[in-house]
Amino acid sequence: MNQIKRVAIVGGTHGNELTGIYLVNKFDRAPELIGRSTFETITLLANPKACEIGTRYVDIDLNRCFRQEDLENPHLSSYEAQRAKEIYGIFSSKNTHQPKVIIDLHSTTSNMGLTFILASHHPFNLQLAAYLTSVHPHLKLLASTTKSHDSNLLRSLSELGGTLEVGAVPQGVLDASLFQQTEQVVSRILDGVEAYNQGTIPPAKNPLTIYHTIGAIDYPRNEKGEIQAMIHPHLQSRDYQALNPGDPMFLTFDGESVLYEGKSTVYPIFINEAAYYEKGIAMCFTQKQIVSLE
Amino acid sequence: MNQIKRVAIVGGTHGNELTGIYLVNKFDRAPELIGRSTFETITLLANPKACEIGTRYVDIDLNRCFRQEDLENPHLSSYEAQRAKEIYGIFSSKNTHQPKVIIDLHSTTSNMGLTFILASHHPFNLQLAAYLTSVHPHLKLLASTTKSHDSNLLRSLSELGGTLEVGAVPQGVLDASLFQQTEQVVSRILDGVEAYNQGTIPPAKNPLTIYHTIGAIDYPRNEKGEIQAMIHPHLQSRDYQALNPGDPMFLTFDGESVLYEGKSTVYPIFINEAAYYEKGIAMCFTQKQIVSLE
Repeated sequence: MNQIKRVAIVGGTHGNELTGIYLVNKFDRAPELIGRSTFETITLLANPKACEIGTRYVDIDLNRCFRQEDLENPHLSSYEAQRAKEIYGIFSSKNTHQPKVIIDLHSTTSNMGLTFILASHHPFNLQLAAYLTSVHPHLKLLASTTKSHDSNLLRSLSELGGTLEVGAVPQGVLDASLFQQTEQVVSRILDGVEAYNQGTIPPAKNPLTIYHTIGAIDYPRNEKGEIQAMIHPHLQSRDYQALNPGDPMFLTFDGESVLYEGKSTVYPIFINEAAYYEKGIAMCFTQKQIVSLE
Repeated sequence: MNQIKRVAIVGGTHGNELTGIYLVNKFDRAPELIGRSTFETITLLANPKACEIGTRYVDIDLNRCFRQEDLENPHLSSYEAQRAKEIYGIFSSKNTHQPKVIIDLHSTTSNMGLTFILASHHPFNLQLAAYLTSVHPHLKLLASTTKSHDSNLLRSLSELGGTLEVGAVPQGVLDASLFQQTEQVVSRILDGVEAYNQGTIPPAKNPLTIYHTIGAIDYPRNEKGEIQAMIHPHLQSRDYQALNPGDPMFLTFDGESVLYEGKSTVYPIFINEAAYYEKGIAMCFTQKQIVSLE
């Protein structure tokens, strides 16, 4: 692969996820923080209108607008559909043949700590992930098993890079500690790209632990679609921890436990994410894989 | 005072505070849970349109619409202004001479645990508060020093009762543990009213600790009104704990601490409440008072 010539740091894809918005603002005030010698770093506030009013989106979720056929469909006219086309234009307007890295900054109400969601299994991403986890051992690595699943996301505009997901933090809230940790990881990503370009990125010493999303489950609902149970207190905030068959998963409003009836152990993430109530997702299930890069 | 003939349990005054909304739904399905022998209990979903779309409000904050002059102003036509008038009508339509208790259910992104905010210093409220804290020792009691400050709130429709504020929970999220604790406190309030009516409410054994709101402070902002600092990690989630002169209060985006420069110890609450960013409130300051009821 050629050298990477451009890295885009994106904030505010969701207008109520403040960490990324304020980080992009900070980088715009102090561009020396994200400058490196071998590539250009640009910043982007993806959904400025949603950021201004402090909501996830104005018309529809921007981070579901990047399917190729939608980007080419002139009849889609919602604010976010148009904004997606603009962003697509920015990222594909010049040097399309040159590799570019996208880092999309998100936050979640789930207790996912710092998670790097790989845009693809491209060897560069694995090398970068190995470098990041060597510096930040607590950083979790997440990947989707199917490429098609992700193809409507902003990060799908490049196979290099991915999403930085941090939490737990409520929508519309700045958490200083998570803000600082996110900034550190962004800085390390830029260092990693620089080292890659200079051929000095260290080889992976240890196998990587990568969580693979294998599906999502909804809250128990009645025939009207109304939620009938909450995340069980024993599962709340336990993202990335083993959920075994028979473990409590939900608690009905009358206090009855609903157990996990799957046949194998899974590792739930996005447990009780506020934005996913409307999407019919109570949590996502992952499997844990150990990947050796040697 | 006459016997209390009516208790109103209000949820969804803010449409993204799910605890109260789902509790009211539960009580509507199982009214026996809130029925008592000496009074009528009614439930109310205060802002159904905001609940439906999952936002705090549609046009303006409903919980700032209950000033008497606004309720009587025919020119105020926002959804919430109209809804406030309807709610005022419901509460004042019959038996206005009879004492009624309002319990307004709220949640907060601040780590305030379970807080009962007294609508007034009426002796009934103090007696009820003493009863509640004898059963729930962790319940915090909060009051405003000035009545006028509260007069635009829904709870101001009666001097009896108050607001139940629970957190930390993100907007748009159900926390099963806090849901159950809130339900227990509501149940105890109803028991307390029943005991009051029957003359069996136990006398207060211990002095009450009541936090009194004495003011609010904003985030540091620049001339454009943009936030320049976050809640300091040392202060985050430390609601009701002493903030002493010289303690760190904010952290700028560049990592500099901003200290509390007041002259006396205060006890901050509503620290980093998401809904208060737009109101220019980073936290409220309270003073702690020990009140003996004997």
